[in-house]
Amino acid sequence: MTNSNLNEWRGCPIRYASSVFGDKWNMMILRDLMFKGRNYYGDFLDAGEGISTNILADRLAKLEQNGIISKNTDPIKRSKKYYRLTNKGLELLPIMLKIIEWSQKYDEKTEVPDQFIHDLKTDPVQLQKRLLNDLSYD
Amino acid sequence: MTNSNLNEWRGCPIRYASSVFGDKWNMMILRDLMFKGRNYYGDFLDAGEGISTNILADRLAKLEQNGIISKNTDPIKRSKKYYRLTNKGLELLPIMLKIIEWSQKYDEKTEVPDQFIHDLKTDPVQLQKRLLNDLSYD
Repeated sequence: MTNSNLNEWRGCPIRYASSVFGDKWNMMILRDLMFKGRNYYGDFLDAGEGISTNILADRLAKLEQNGIISKNTDPIKRSKKYYRLTNKGLELLPIMLKIIEWSQKYDEKTEVPDQFIHDLKTDPVQLQKRLLNDLSYD
Repeated sequence: MTNSNLNEWRGCPIRYASSVFGDKWNMMILRDLMFKGRNYYGDFLDAGEGISTNILADRLAKLEQNGIISKNTDPIKRSKKYYRLTNKGLELLPIMLKIIEWSQKYDEKTEVPDQFIHDLKTDPVQLQKRLLNDLSYD
């Protein structure tokens, strides 16, 4: 049975992105990977957001399935795994920067470092390059 | 009792935005308001996403509380209410455009009209102005 309504939205870009952004925990994990230098399971668990182990494991698995992050073996302690953003994940950065700009404007409790906001407003392309450079693991 | 971890993130911009974006249904409602010309309760219900009435009512109330949308009385049928984006809500547009660009690149099933993607890539500022102009209700 074909449902014409479902068909209509099958290709919706916002709907697709909601599989990544339509979840608070995914957004916290992406933030940690992009801006906080957190790459290990324990890092996300201890990030102060109160995520439970089963939700964290679920979100990491789904982000990996969706090609946003990759799971890697720690070169020193081989039982330890760390995560990093794929190219597809790294290209979420422009979205995250727009989000930061919006929140900083509309949420009085948001605390973005002055220099960061300055760079974001005056030269976002350069800021993005620098951040991507910091995130290039190889 | 103060939890230093919680304090650390109280001002996080991504965390704040997750109250809007960290939910699939919010994203669908924002999409409908921005790009689909849907402004009535029934429009969102019939958008083909399978949202239930109680979830829709909850999300609309929260978006209103958070100052993203406003609830208005239909000038003809006064028992009918319609919704529109506030300025704070309209300024989510640059985030949504970045999301569309990303999905169009990474999801093969995403179907964005060619002209839209062309405008988005060649002159995003102009596209944004045009969209905002279309959305100016007054």
